[in-house]
Amino acid sequence: MAETKIPYKIYLNESEMPDKWYNVRADMKNKPAPLLNPATHEPMKPEELGVVFCDELVAQELDNTNPYIEIPQEIRDFYKMYRPSPLVRAYCLEEKLQTPAKIYYKFEGNNTSGSHKLNSAIAQAYYAKKQGLKGVTTETGAGQWGTALSMACSYLGLDCKVYMVKCSYEQKPFRREVMRTYGASVIPSPSMTTQVGQKILAEHPDTTGSLGCAISEAVEVAVTNEGYRYVLGSVLNQVLLHQSIIGMETKIAMDKYGIKPDIIIGCAGGGSNLGGLISPFMGEKLRGEADYQFIAVEPASCPSFTRGTYAYDFCDTGMICPLAKMYTLGCDFIPSPNHAGGLRYHGMSPVLSQLYDDGLMEARSVIQTDVFEAAEAFARVEGILPAPESSHAIRVAIDEALKCKETGEEKTILFGLTGTGYFDMYAYEKFHNGEMGDYIPTDEELAKYRAALPKVD
Amino acid sequence: MAETKIPYKIYLNESEMPDKWYNVRADMKNKPAPLLNPATHEPMKPEELGVVFCDELVAQELDNTNPYIEIPQEIRDFYKMYRPSPLVRAYCLEEKLQTPAKIYYKFEGNNTSGSHKLNSAIAQAYYAKKQGLKGVTTETGAGQWGTALSMACSYLGLDCKVYMVKCSYEQKPFRREVMRTYGASVIPSPSMTTQVGQKILAEHPDTTGSLGCAISEAVEVAVTNEGYRYVLGSVLNQVLLHQSIIGMETKIAMDKYGIKPDIIIGCAGGGSNLGGLISPFMGEKLRGEADYQFIAVEPASCPSFTRGTYAYDFCDTGMICPLAKMYTLGCDFIPSPNHAGGLRYHGMSPVLSQLYDDGLMEARSVIQTDVFEAAEAFARVEGILPAPESSHAIRVAIDEALKCKETGEEKTILFGLTGTGYFDMYAYEKFHNGEMGDYIPTDEELAKYRAALPKVD
Repeated sequence: MAETKIPYKIYLNESEMPDKWYNVRADMKNKPAPLLNPATHEPMKPEELGVVFCDELVAQELDNTNPYIEIPQEIRDFYKMYRPSPLVRAYCLEEKLQTPAKIYYKFEGNNTSGSHKLNSAIAQAYYAKKQGLKGVTTETGAGQWGTALSMACSYLGLDCKVYMVKCSYEQKPFRREVMRTYGASVIPSPSMTTQVGQKILAEHPDTTGSLGCAISEAVEVAVTNEGYRYVLGSVLNQVLLHQSIIGMETKIAMDKYGIKPDIIIGCAGGGSNLGGLISPFMGEKLRGEADYQFIAVEPASCPSFTRGTYAYDFCDTGMICPLAKMYTLGCDFIPSPNHAGGLRYHGMSPVLSQLYDDGLMEARSVIQTDVFEAAEAFARVEGILPAPESSHAIRVAIDEALKCKETGEEKTILFGLTGTGYFDMYAYEKFHNGEMGDYIPTDEELAKYRAALPKVD
Repeated sequence: MAETKIPYKIYLNESEMPDKWYNVRADMKNKPAPLLNPATHEPMKPEELGVVFCDELVAQELDNTNPYIEIPQEIRDFYKMYRPSPLVRAYCLEEKLQTPAKIYYKFEGNNTSGSHKLNSAIAQAYYAKKQGLKGVTTETGAGQWGTALSMACSYLGLDCKVYMVKCSYEQKPFRREVMRTYGASVIPSPSMTTQVGQKILAEHPDTTGSLGCAISEAVEVAVTNEGYRYVLGSVLNQVLLHQSIIGMETKIAMDKYGIKPDIIIGCAGGGSNLGGLISPFMGEKLRGEADYQFIAVEPASCPSFTRGTYAYDFCDTGMICPLAKMYTLGCDFIPSPNHAGGLRYHGMSPVLSQLYDDGLMEARSVIQTDVFEAAEAFARVEGILPAPESSHAIRVAIDEALKCKETGEEKTILFGLTGTGYFDMYAYEKFHNGEMGDYIPTDEELAKYRAALPKVD
């Protein structure tokens, strides 16, 4: 490989790291729709949200006007433990594909939680601590968010209760042990520790759980225990705000080397990584300063953008959370248990939903065997073993690079590599053994859940 | 935490990365003893070693005179995929311990193999490829070396056969899947695929295997198959040479910021990480340019330095490898199966053995519950979940920092954090559940293996 001007990995100096988060809502003409009270269908008031969330996070959730929000020094110190994350030029992948495209990825997996989730976990834990709380509750599916929150709480000395979707709890005992290493309590969901869990277990004694159900339990514990609040790892506006650190670091690094991406790609479950990565670039597009092609990639098993409805829906199965307007498959939709690729949430970030509805970004769905094929090819040349979630973005980045090979275009492709797959080897094993199928919901199935969406005027 | 001049993490620029390995043997007055032919007890000739190892690696193995060896450009390109590794100032650990000591660690776990092993794997695979070979064979215990070699072979398009100690193969199916992701064949050892494996299974049908036994099988396959050679992840002089990249990067980073370590600590199994980390510092000490305190840390379950004998011994159970003069517990010694902390090899690098025998470095043994206690404390404040192996060094670094707290000394402590513990959660689980004991061999047991050492004049 020839000597090149752009290094394999661009690391910012600590002094170049952003000291503010960027709030893309400030530049959106059409703001994301407000959260609604599920009983009255009126916009949630700060004091209502304050029962569930920490006060400063409520303020961030509702702030549609301030473009920049200062990152507190304590959070910046924590960020320095594992940030800046590298922006990697995928020279080896380019060579393997023999593409004229230039491929970059922002790698967020170099921390023990294994993903970008830590960026928001430390922020949410910090504001809980600052408010004098005892602890926080949350849910986790694959376990990345739960691990991230455990790490943040351990660092700050907060109690941390994690409701882990039962099938993950059983299939991923090692994820559970990582959380225990960081001192968290991990409870399989649904559980008998909550009323909503008891109700779900009474109706579906054999259920293996879902994210929506675990959210309901975690929220119930937060609102019924003195000194606790609930925190969430994706979907919410505040989470996208914290995750903007990904995009801001990326932009600073690219500007430093005079790189301008043509296409920006991210996987999308609840939208935290994609929203964070694209934020500052989307800001430029919204302000008319630059143009980019944004592509959200979701699993064909859980296609909220590509086959969902833009409507108000419940965020949780227990229907105790506020209603959010988002691209959704319906709050009772659960992807096939055979779907191993993550990104299982039924809805999508309200911010991204609005941007998508306004035609400012695209979405594609991909089947999981194609995703794992891309994951393995990437691992073999770039070294990093990617998380199945992140591999959705790899798949489309490779597809776009191969298009460039056909057309001869030298496009610059940027994608988010959100995490590592060390705790997903069971899925990789299924793929190696040829036992991984593809699971696409039928139109009839989706219509059933669509019909059950709440009616909101 | 106050703003400081030394960043949390020091990353070299790619242009500052070393382009040569440092060969500490060149500066040793007493050279490590030569490998001997197990039949004749004569020093192994290059042509004899060439049956087992690649030619250029034989030359490196025997080179006691050249202080610097050029790193081929292809290897430097591969290094850029995951290096430079960060030198981390452990501000959070210092604050937690309330010590006046300044603690640094060189973190080698930020790559998919999860450890420093990749530094030598790519070098050995490169020379095999250059020699036009079809593939390489090796053994692996915990799986770090096997994973590293799989990654390197996949990158270069070489076949890779890994003999994995049977108990690890069964207890760590996910490690096996990572190797399969990189295209390696993984065979549980002892196996029926080799004569030595068949012999061991006939004598001990219930054996769960050992590193010494897996080495014998891998060597047999290499010497009986056209186009294959054997590669080893530790112990050998060549491996320490490749691992000197760790120490050289560390020294460049420290010199850049005017930091001089007083104490340098590393865990020691076969010696690859410790040897690599200390090499350039030891060179200064050997040349009388500077002085450092070096501490090798080994498990009390497998105490080759602290309770072994400096003598010629077999490197493998099948006794088909050359004899090496080293601190050894005897080639039939196997640590208690309840020992979960890694570093299970019966012998120690001949280079480190000679340095230790010359009084140039110290050694300490630690019990595994103390090691896991240090690991968990470290994880909670520094974020990184450490490998059990690496946590031996953490234990002694903490002990030394606490001594400084008592005396008020502001010593600078450097230790090697060789890897991550994502595939060791079974051991962490035992620790959390209070089921982890400490296993220290008795004097009688050690005497039995000592009496069986080969007689070499």
